[in-house]
Amino acid sequence: MIDYQKRIKKVKDLMKEDYIILGPGSNLFYLTGFTEEPMERPILLIIGENDYMLVPKMYEEQLSSLDLEIRTYQDGSDPYSLIDIKPGSSIAVDDSLWSIFLISIIHRFSPSRLSSASTILGKLRSVKDENEIQIMSEGLTIAENSFLKLLEKIKEGQTECEISKTLEVIFFEYGVSPSFSTILTSGPNTSMPHLRCTERKVKIGDPIIVDFGIKYKGYSTDTTRVLTIGRPSDEVKKIWAIVDQAVRLAEESWLGITGKEIDDRAREHIKKTGYGDLFIHRTGHGIGIDVHEEPYISQDNHTLIPKNSVFTIEPGIYIPGKFGIRIENMVLMRDRVTVLNKLSEEIYEI
Amino acid sequence: MIDYQKRIKKVKDLMKEDYIILGPGSNLFYLTGFTEEPMERPILLIIGENDYMLVPKMYEEQLSSLDLEIRTYQDGSDPYSLIDIKPGSSIAVDDSLWSIFLISIIHRFSPSRLSSASTILGKLRSVKDENEIQIMSEGLTIAENSFLKLLEKIKEGQTECEISKTLEVIFFEYGVSPSFSTILTSGPNTSMPHLRCTERKVKIGDPIIVDFGIKYKGYSTDTTRVLTIGRPSDEVKKIWAIVDQAVRLAEESWLGITGKEIDDRAREHIKKTGYGDLFIHRTGHGIGIDVHEEPYISQDNHTLIPKNSVFTIEPGIYIPGKFGIRIENMVLMRDRVTVLNKLSEEIYEI
Repeated sequence: MIDYQKRIKKVKDLMKEDYIILGPGSNLFYLTGFTEEPMERPILLIIGENDYMLVPKMYEEQLSSLDLEIRTYQDGSDPYSLIDIKPGSSIAVDDSLWSIFLISIIHRFSPSRLSSASTILGKLRSVKDENEIQIMSEGLTIAENSFLKLLEKIKEGQTECEISKTLEVIFFEYGVSPSFSTILTSGPNTSMPHLRCTERKVKIGDPIIVDFGIKYKGYSTDTTRVLTIGRPSDEVKKIWAIVDQAVRLAEESWLGITGKEIDDRAREHIKKTGYGDLFIHRTGHGIGIDVHEEPYISQDNHTLIPKNSVFTIEPGIYIPGKFGIRIENMVLMRDRVTVLNKLSEEIYEI
Repeated sequence: MIDYQKRIKKVKDLMKEDYIILGPGSNLFYLTGFTEEPMERPILLIIGENDYMLVPKMYEEQLSSLDLEIRTYQDGSDPYSLIDIKPGSSIAVDDSLWSIFLISIIHRFSPSRLSSASTILGKLRSVKDENEIQIMSEGLTIAENSFLKLLEKIKEGQTECEISKTLEVIFFEYGVSPSFSTILTSGPNTSMPHLRCTERKVKIGDPIIVDFGIKYKGYSTDTTRVLTIGRPSDEVKKIWAIVDQAVRLAEESWLGITGKEIDDRAREHIKKTGYGDLFIHRTGHGIGIDVHEEPYISQDNHTLIPKNSVFTIEPGIYIPGKFGIRIENMVLMRDRVTVLNKLSEEIYEI
């Protein structure tokens, strides 16, 4: 059993602001176990002199088991009248809280200072306990097995979106859902790192990038592998080898290193090969309840990567109009980096 | 082909603020066709003296086909340095923009006034063109057919989540995905309007509520029906009849009515039967790209429901610890309300 009261207490011990306001999302899930999609009706957890949730009346029975004060409002009435925030206070705000709610709070309570609740919750959540690590490892195994099943089903002439859908059906059969819209691109589309899929048909010689993840017991996975239909070209093999070496160098990191330093290890190698300008994103990101969370493996992260944090290593090289290659592993920081993925990083030939 | 430039021009004609700032989501999709999940990297459409999108470098190639200026930043650099907003300006902000971005903008550009971009975009989007109505009708047909297929597969002893999953598999087979996490509850769980599903096994005599919708070509559907395993009890039949009559009364509305007045039509009937306190939410909401959008059918909406708006009618009665009944249709306002659903509102006996 997760001790939510203990987590909330930790937040209260760390907070310097007068209030923390959270909306539906990963922080609320972390502190209460409650999930809901963000919508136009305010659902807020307010931590301050009093800790309470503000929710529409229709959630009252559903939330009655939470060990928290619940304040409910009827549709059409003014929810903000149930909030007691002293004007001129400092407020730490959930990064993903919808602006409409923040604007209402600003207009109503004129806070003196607004800051990001990540400075507290991001830090807490970046250190995983053994239970969380166990869940994430189990999730990763399911995701990897799904990928291996997908390999058996890909055929020349299928469209990117068709193949992506096939992977989602496999996730479904495992009883899990994607943690983000799968990125499944082929041929020249692979040079666009965040394109999802198109109606392009895959053909002999194409590199295919599959960037996929699942949500399992509330936690996310995120992995990328490269396939080819038929044999990869020499150029694809060359770029793959550079990226793979960048992955390895970043993974040879140890406790006491910063996010920037890990990013440097991958980036310097790619720069030396002359492709530095084509590595157009950071080396990685923390992962947990959210697909992207702290710690970031990025040029602007000068803080130490904490023990028991889980993050991705995912350098890439993108040649516009031609192709791109990215390899992505999930890793765990113990005394050194430990790779959680079991899948080989090889180019998978279909 | 959708004329995005025309839509942006309409926004510019209507806006009174110096700037509008949108993030990933339905407004951005409406104005550009571009979709992305909101994440920690700012992706912004800024409308003002200049109109441009601010995106991470990795999106540059992907967005090159948009008829808009694209400003890109590298991971680890400062995205906000690429924004030109005059300090002290008024800004209309996307309701769903993440607060972290709004806070950064406040700190950097000290706006004099913040308001909700819904006052412009909500109004525009609430009036559907014939193409949008056509897409939504097609989507609704797929959703309804999925529901009918589900009926054949429900058996006593299955859990709520199992049945919910079965519906999602059917959506999948139609090539569509849910527009929100399906609500599928049984027995006493049906009195919690927004509970999703539990491991409770459905049994003879249970009422089951299925509140389901799909996303089709970017547009959402949303419908609720009541089932029973075996014959419904007299009490379930009685409550169903009251709710069904409330639906009918609300649907007998005409152009020139306000959101509040439609809500009143359903609410007054339920009040008269003595169950007013157990109708714990509004009568409905607009629907389109978002599942919930303008116009709201709610006590605080004193504006006229516009012609060619699409919205739901979904009164409900919830008896805590016992059961709840909700029936939900999608309707279109022409000169009168036209019901888009084809499914009977009857209690479906399994």
